[in-house]
Amino acid sequence: MPALDFATTPWTEVEARLARPTLAVLPLGAVEQHGAHLPLTVDADLALGVARAIADPLDALLLPAMPYGDAWNNAAYPGTLSLSPATLQAAIVDIGEGLRQMGVAGLIILNGHFGNHEPMLLAARRLSDAGLPCLHLDYPGLGDLAAVHCDSTPAAPHFYHADEVETSMMLALRPDAVRMEAAAPSYPTFPPLFGSIPMQLREFNPTGVFGDPRPATAEKGHAFIAGIAANTAPIISAFLHRNGLPG
Amino acid sequence: MPALDFATTPWTEVEARLARPTLAVLPLGAVEQHGAHLPLTVDADLALGVARAIADPLDALLLPAMPYGDAWNNAAYPGTLSLSPATLQAAIVDIGEGLRQMGVAGLIILNGHFGNHEPMLLAARRLSDAGLPCLHLDYPGLGDLAAVHCDSTPAAPHFYHADEVETSMMLALRPDAVRMEAAAPSYPTFPPLFGSIPMQLREFNPTGVFGDPRPATAEKGHAFIAGIAANTAPIISAFLHRNGLPG
Amino acid sequence: MPALDFATTPWTEVEARLARPTLAVLPLGAVEQHGAHLPLTVDADLALGVARAIADPLDALLLPAMPYGDAWNNAAYPGTLSLSPATLQAAIVDIGEGLRQMGVAGLIILNGHFGNHEPMLLAARRLSDAGLPCLHLDYPGLGDLAAVHCDSTPAAPHFYHADEVETSMMLALRPDAVRMEAAAPSYPTFPPLFGSIPMQLREFNPTGVFGDPRPATAEKGHAFIAGIAANTAPIISAFLHRNGLPG
Amino acid sequence: MPALDFATTPWTEVEARLARPTLAVLPLGAVEQHGAHLPLTVDADLALGVARAIADPLDALLLPAMPYGDAWNNAAYPGTLSLSPATLQAAIVDIGEGLRQMGVAGLIILNGHFGNHEPMLLAARRLSDAGLPCLHLDYPGLGDLAAVHCDSTPAAPHFYHADEVETSMMLALRPDAVRMEAAAPSYPTFPPLFGSIPMQLREFNPTGVFGDPRPATAEKGHAFIAGIAANTAPIISAFLHRNGLPG
Amino acid sequence: MPALDFATTPWTEVEARLARPTLAVLPLGAVEQHGAHLPLTVDADLALGVARAIADPLDALLLPAMPYGDAWNNAAYPGTLSLSPATLQAAIVDIGEGLRQMGVAGLIILNGHFGNHEPMLLAARRLSDAGLPCLHLDYPGLGDLAAVHCDSTPAAPHFYHADEVETSMMLALRPDAVRMEAAAPSYPTFPPLFGSIPMQLREFNPTGVFGDPRPATAEKGHAFIAGIAANTAPIISAFLHRNGLPG
Amino acid sequence: MPALDFATTPWTEVEARLARPTLAVLPLGAVEQHGAHLPLTVDADLALGVARAIADPLDALLLPAMPYGDAWNNAAYPGTLSLSPATLQAAIVDIGEGLRQMGVAGLIILNGHFGNHEPMLLAARRLSDAGLPCLHLDYPGLGDLAAVHCDSTPAAPHFYHADEVETSMMLALRPDAVRMEAAAPSYPTFPPLFGSIPMQLREFNPTGVFGDPRPATAEKGHAFIAGIAANTAPIISAFLHRNGLPG
Repeated sequence: MPALDFATTPWTEVEARLARPTLAVLPLGAVEQHGAHLPLTVDADLALGVARAIADPLDALLLPAMPYGDAWNNAAYPGTLSLSPATLQAAIVDIGEGLRQMGVAGLIILNGHFGNHEPMLLAARRLSDAGLPCLHLDYPGLGDLAAVHCDSTPAAPHFYHADEVETSMMLALRPDAVRMEAAAPSYPTFPPLFGSIPMQLREFNPTGVFGDPRPATAEKGHAFIAGIAANTAPIISAFLHRNGLPG
Repeated sequence: MPALDFATTPWTEVEARLARPTLAVLPLGAVEQHGAHLPLTVDADLALGVARAIADPLDALLLPAMPYGDAWNNAAYPGTLSLSPATLQAAIVDIGEGLRQMGVAGLIILNGHFGNHEPMLLAARRLSDAGLPCLHLDYPGLGDLAAVHCDSTPAAPHFYHADEVETSMMLALRPDAVRMEAAAPSYPTFPPLFGSIPMQLREFNPTGVFGDPRPATAEKGHAFIAGIAANTAPIISAFLHRNGLPG
Repeated sequence: MPALDFATTPWTEVEARLARPTLAVLPLGAVEQHGAHLPLTVDADLALGVARAIADPLDALLLPAMPYGDAWNNAAYPGTLSLSPATLQAAIVDIGEGLRQMGVAGLIILNGHFGNHEPMLLAARRLSDAGLPCLHLDYPGLGDLAAVHCDSTPAAPHFYHADEVETSMMLALRPDAVRMEAAAPSYPTFPPLFGSIPMQLREFNPTGVFGDPRPATAEKGHAFIAGIAANTAPIISAFLHRNGLPG
Repeated sequence: MPALDFATTPWTEVEARLARPTLAVLPLGAVEQHGAHLPLTVDADLALGVARAIADPLDALLLPAMPYGDAWNNAAYPGTLSLSPATLQAAIVDIGEGLRQMGVAGLIILNGHFGNHEPMLLAARRLSDAGLPCLHLDYPGLGDLAAVHCDSTPAAPHFYHADEVETSMMLALRPDAVRMEAAAPSYPTFPPLFGSIPMQLREFNPTGVFGDPRPATAEKGHAFIAGIAANTAPIISAFLHRNGLPG
Repeated sequence: MPALDFATTPWTEVEARLARPTLAVLPLGAVEQHGAHLPLTVDADLALGVARAIADPLDALLLPAMPYGDAWNNAAYPGTLSLSPATLQAAIVDIGEGLRQMGVAGLIILNGHFGNHEPMLLAARRLSDAGLPCLHLDYPGLGDLAAVHCDSTPAAPHFYHADEVETSMMLALRPDAVRMEAAAPSYPTFPPLFGSIPMQLREFNPTGVFGDPRPATAEKGHAFIAGIAANTAPIISAFLHRNGLPG
Repeated sequence: MPALDFATTPWTEVEARLARPTLAVLPLGAVEQHGAHLPLTVDADLALGVARAIADPLDALLLPAMPYGDAWNNAAYPGTLSLSPATLQAAIVDIGEGLRQMGVAGLIILNGHFGNHEPMLLAARRLSDAGLPCLHLDYPGLGDLAAVHCDSTPAAPHFYHADEVETSMMLALRPDAVRMEAAAPSYPTFPPLFGSIPMQLREFNPTGVFGDPRPATAEKGHAFIAGIAANTAPIISAFLHRNGLPG
């Protein structure tokens, strides 16, 4: 059975599925600039796509992506919108608390945006303490996958933003929303204070692209998604095992 | 020009649009049971659809729907998930604060779920005080539209949930997600304590449907959406006028 | 036995009363303009009077009215003072928590001011979850009572503010505080944006009266109070029954 | 002109009074046990009476007493009900913020209950920082007044609770609510841990009286009230002078 | 066995000590002006010294002093830095919660700064409610000790700040940090509004000294510390007895 | 001039120093297990030592280290104590707000504990927005320094905890608190779920050491401290330049 996507599923099927131990997968996105060739919703789009790839083999509940995240350092690019870290953490905790009361056996949080990492982690702590086992994942093994599949180099180690990686994944998931004709490389110089003061990325990167999106293809995008899902599988197995769940 | 839908728009177009006074439209949904024939995301789906109808003639920014809302009294139907009112209010305030800093001239919050009303209203107060004019709308005039277009009667006055109204709108917007074969009427008896104590609706309504979804059609759905948009137009005109904005 | 009014009752009698299952009644008021003929404390005065009528036949604990509420949209009339919704909700929760620890069997919150409705409801949710059954009441059936007893028409459906209804109840409860010579009708035109933006009522109503207080009499006031109490009785019966309490 | 008591004053008179610099006086009470001879509302009753004595010569606004305070260490006597310190502080701040926006020139907080002291003080800090001059008073000089007028000794230095002092003031202000036949002395032994651990007073004082209420008279009560008001006068003069206000 | 000072103790010894019932001692300080002859850290230095004297005979855990406290009314002297009362309370609660989970049998909070008193007390309430017995101490009996040992008079009753008392204790604990050549007396006149409005002490005391530090000696300082510890002993005995702990 | 260490400095010198633009340095530590050979205060000890090396050439204010941090994942080792991330963030903001009002030109936060990173960063955001330029540093370039100076390998990349690095720095700063005879290597196997669920480190590491502390020497410790300070210098230069400060 595939995942139960809440976007197409009535509650009656959720109740039926919960008769046996069931996980839920919550994708986290952001409303954030992704250059001139990608829409503002990239992070939620990708997180939802990857979450689906993860949820399907688990027969899990696939929850709607939280489309807003913490994208503070992209705020200077109009279109970027953020939740504060405290709000985002509270939202994840609220959702998890509902899942716990619903009888879900565990929650996988699948994060598609760097700025959400800490709120996700803190929410997972609280939910775990409250009795809902939580697995929090960024894209496991993406660095290795990028090294294998990319024809371009990243703008900085482990920094994939509006580049070949994200553009490929968008081509795989939402090709209609990609404007390859507007894709242009950008390898900005990181200023010495980067990472040591609160700084807007626009200060040193006028376009918002980090890397080179031009070699992106849908095939690579599918490879990334499949690769992340494959990397995730043993982690989930360990998670199921740890919590005494079948699988 | 149509609305700038953030789901397909790069930030560069948002910046360009903001060269002139621009409104943003934020749809509010919920993850909530809607009977056996509709998916859990109905409220966000409809709010987004109506928001688009409102945003298009305004050349406004169409923001991603907040998919989670406060659906506390549906919590007993598995699949329902809520944000607490405080979290939801904080999320709207955070988003609005970003819009204000971005230079948006005003925010229209379009609410598709009753339980979001008060958090929306309180967020609008705070944002207005902070300098962002806010218009907060449920579906203006829906009662009159229902009286005109519906072949069924509502389960209670001004109570449209998984009924002919919502089902019709879903048939207009997301027909693939509607299972008309599972649509069945439900006219539960409201217990005397309803509205006077915190009460789960499932206590007196086993299916979650309030009314009769069977006469629903896509045509009626389009009529509802167009009717709401038409009812909204003079309110928005007054809003623009009040804030010295063209339109 | 009548209610135990905390304003005249030592703690020793409360302890004695709690030997059997006992309800408490908490009136909610506001410090808010009520035209030129009524004092700022009307909402607390009326809520206390109605609460007493409800508490007496129940032998309940009659708590001091919370005199401050959320009267945000009357703030432009000097004399109006508000608690924020979050503060008001916290106050009700704190009081309820004390009642729960005291061993009270249930709490009836009797609200005399529209702006308190949502904080009351959210507090009731939390207290119910914590184990204190809560009944939250505005004035049940006031609309029907007004239709029966009033010689004037309301300024808007279900809108009773400094009008014949409230003035009559004040004449019944605190006649010394009513200045009938200053009573004057006011039927303001509600602007199109009313209810859709945060708006001060003074913007379109210079006097603060909504309706016509001139036909008010103490007799009508007593009829309203008795009528509300009568309408409340079956609700309370259901509440007692639901919670396994005698009565 | 006497104080403008909000319990009898329409908003129109408040607006008129505010044409010249005007102070507001906010009494703070508590719902707390006061032995078998006094009602639970003593602290609010007395604070209101003293506040009136202070407000009258100032032509000030006399606000409704906040009837609930922080009476944590009396919680073991049924009937006692508390706001948390944070809630109480927030309530005072909310009220003060409304006064500031209303154009009041300064706020005198008159506290009738020991447990409210710190929340009052912290609220005064915040309000002063926000631009509302705040004077926070417990009963100035009460110790000296008690030494002069009392025929009994206090149960502990500066500890006046349900004793000759409070009972006298109640006899002066609300004689109908005093049951002198139930007045009995109580001089409990304070345990060594008193003041060093969170401790319920009932642990070592079964009646709740601290001292001897029997010699109480209304005359003494009037002397206390007048004496406190007299002690307060020079403090208020200094407060007015400091803030450039006439008087 | 002496106290286990966390500044020199590995976790392994803490675990071993916890095999039997063990108390922890948490000193509270402040970063606050103490005249021209004492450093800003006096309150933490002294609290740590006294805490050590208390912890040693108890074989207790001696925790690092919280160096920051609420010193609001010294803010006008540069160098003073405060935590808000809410932050300080939260910090104590967090630390206490960790102790509770660690299996500590009780917490002694030893406060060296007046402004910390209320946050300490409120934290102790919460921790006690959560199951960690808490004793909260300022310097017990310091007033009597000062009367015995001091050659100077305090600037106000029970007001010991940068005076003979604190300077002596610093001479006993951290003589290198004392500049006796800069010690000068200061007996400011307290303005009539002192204690009734939020007021910076610098307004009426330019040096920050309250009293006369010149007669200070290390011997007196040792006498104060030993005296406080001696005064504390019976309180701790009562605390141990109350909680069924050996000692 | 060297740094003004608050532990030895009266306020009068702080005021004098502030006559010219002055930075403050705030060290962040933690109370956390560091194996059987190091005390629980290592992180604060080291952060203070490094902060001093940074503050001295800047003539900066050297603030007391915040000794408590967020050490959640070490909680299973007794002795570890944490502030919640929200409390820690609030504490840094409170301190920074005091510095801003004091007239400090900028704040350098020097973090000695990984778990404090995010609260530090969020506090820096808020303080920067409030007008206090903030630089937030972990130990810059420590990885390269470790690669140069260490004779042992780390237990994981960029993971230095109770190992050769930290032990060397403790030998340089607080040799009396180091028990080299108890130093023993530990190279635990990280479980597959590490980093993906909230997990206590003790689950897979019984001693708390990560790496091999045995080759540690004071000389290496001094080299680390000097190296970090050297790495920090150009960052601070850029920070000063960015904020128009001399240096």
